[in-house]
Amino acid sequence: MSISEFALIERYFRHCGVKRGDVRLGIGDDAALLETPPDVELVAAIDTLVAGVHFPAGSPAASIGHRALAVNLSDLAAMGARPAWALLALTMPTADEPWLGEFASGFTALARAHQVALVGGDTTSGPLCVSVQLLGHVSRSTAMLRSGGKPGDVLFVSGTPGDAAAGLALEQQQLTATSEAAARLRDRFLFPTPRVALGERLRQFATACIDVSDGLLADAGKLAHASGCGVEVQYSDVPVSEALVSAVGNAKARELALTGGEDYELCFCVHPDNVGKLRQALPPEQWGYRSIGALREAPGAVVLAADASVMDFSHSGFDHFGS
Amino acid sequence: MSISEFALIERYFRHCGVKRGDVRLGIGDDAALLETPPDVELVAAIDTLVAGVHFPAGSPAASIGHRALAVNLSDLAAMGARPAWALLALTMPTADEPWLGEFASGFTALARAHQVALVGGDTTSGPLCVSVQLLGHVSRSTAMLRSGGKPGDVLFVSGTPGDAAAGLALEQQQLTATSEAAARLRDRFLFPTPRVALGERLRQFATACIDVSDGLLADAGKLAHASGCGVEVQYSDVPVSEALVSAVGNAKARELALTGGEDYELCFCVHPDNVGKLRQALPPEQWGYRSIGALREAPGAVVLAADASVMDFSHSGFDHFGS
Repeated sequence: MSISEFALIERYFRHCGVKRGDVRLGIGDDAALLETPPDVELVAAIDTLVAGVHFPAGSPAASIGHRALAVNLSDLAAMGARPAWALLALTMPTADEPWLGEFASGFTALARAHQVALVGGDTTSGPLCVSVQLLGHVSRSTAMLRSGGKPGDVLFVSGTPGDAAAGLALEQQQLTATSEAAARLRDRFLFPTPRVALGERLRQFATACIDVSDGLLADAGKLAHASGCGVEVQYSDVPVSEALVSAVGNAKARELALTGGEDYELCFCVHPDNVGKLRQALPPEQWGYRSIGALREAPGAVVLAADASVMDFSHSGFDHFGS
Repeated sequence: MSISEFALIERYFRHCGVKRGDVRLGIGDDAALLETPPDVELVAAIDTLVAGVHFPAGSPAASIGHRALAVNLSDLAAMGARPAWALLALTMPTADEPWLGEFASGFTALARAHQVALVGGDTTSGPLCVSVQLLGHVSRSTAMLRSGGKPGDVLFVSGTPGDAAAGLALEQQQLTATSEAAARLRDRFLFPTPRVALGERLRQFATACIDVSDGLLADAGKLAHASGCGVEVQYSDVPVSEALVSAVGNAKARELALTGGEDYELCFCVHPDNVGKLRQALPPEQWGYRSIGALREAPGAVVLAADASVMDFSHSGFDHFGS
């Protein structure tokens, strides 16, 4: 089945996402025209998903559409920004209409949940590759950076990292689990939940924040490095889901939580004086986060056992070009 | 040679483009923070180049870096916008450092020429594919759209379209030419010149504008369609370069000028009452544009011979998924 690029965009992408009053001109011209509110900074992120790298070649199209937007929503969440407008660059071997319909539905459902309008894009033929550029805004000088942490700040993580890595292993048939655990873990890989609302509320408490995409320990290390310090994580405090423990056991669950990727949770730190206020304003049982360690003077990212000895996690996250 | 994603970004992309005072936070965090001036609309475009589709597999890396930015600059030029910030999503099979150095130098030279800062990006492994998202701005309600044309408006095009298509054919060894003509045509394909300064100045004269990337006739047709009318192009007025005529002869030169792609020129229309003012403010011999026809009531895009008969150019531009 052959469909022109023009017809394809009209059919699948013209009505992706929500209508927003601040979009003066959306899809269909050479560029989009957008109205930014006063007294904000514009926030911009771009992230790419490549078949066989970020998802198995046969992944459900709805998941690819969801994840392409989710990874960028997660970047904006880490800044505490409110998302607004997306642009989509979709490269695919052929214009497979059922695939496109599912892709668009996955993208659209998440875009609607976060009030994001799709305002532009580009579709080309080639190996499957999806880049989404997401724009949003944040009140001037209130964005959370990676670099604001200080030694002594308490370190937190949202959700239950490691689930997505196990979900991917299940998708790739490198792991088996009970059907209930498998369904939950797969869902965490295929349809991650970017923590946008949490990020926006954390701005008044967190000194620094990063999204966890390359593995908790690696990303906590990046936050610490950007803040000019180091970080220690208490092994016993690392949150793990019941589903993950039931699938891989306790030790492997914590290893995946520390070093697995694709979680799209938030890792953030808070000055000790403000931890009480944080917990009061954002009850942890409601918002789903917990403390896992602290920033420290000495550089590096270490995991401490109950007896305070350093544990080795030499496989510390995903690097696209590292050896 | 193996290089981490972090080191790669530090080495090749941290200092791409210019430093701008309106970049509060650039490469190195989860997202960029940017300050937009008051009383503007934000302008956003995204375009992708895929190896084997938009450029031959062995193209010079400097050309790929240049073109990835140029195609987006051309989109902003068509709106009359001033470019400001770029984000780069680069997918490549391996981190080939000489290739990366050349790619970055091609990107950087053009970014500097247009005062563009590279403020974010994503590098991943996979088949070679480059998406650039470009952001800029334009004074509120002054952007040129495709949809503003009216029957009777005079149609113009900048530069000498068709050169790039011949340059691509030369690159692919499907064409031969004298060394002088070949060098000029190749350069027009490998290093197209986006008409940013022209676009910004055209805002006060043009009723509609589009950038010519899929072929002049096809893109003029898109402008006309968006404006709710049709367009006629005078065959004898279509500009062709000496190099193109010397390489392919007169008839083929005009065919390529009408239907070749990758020109990145501007096609625009102006109310007849304003053509004199346009020519006075922007002398055609200095700014390199000429009139080639007019918008008309009847839909469609046609080419007229000297005797006013309609000429057939059924191959009317490039469509990524059309039959």
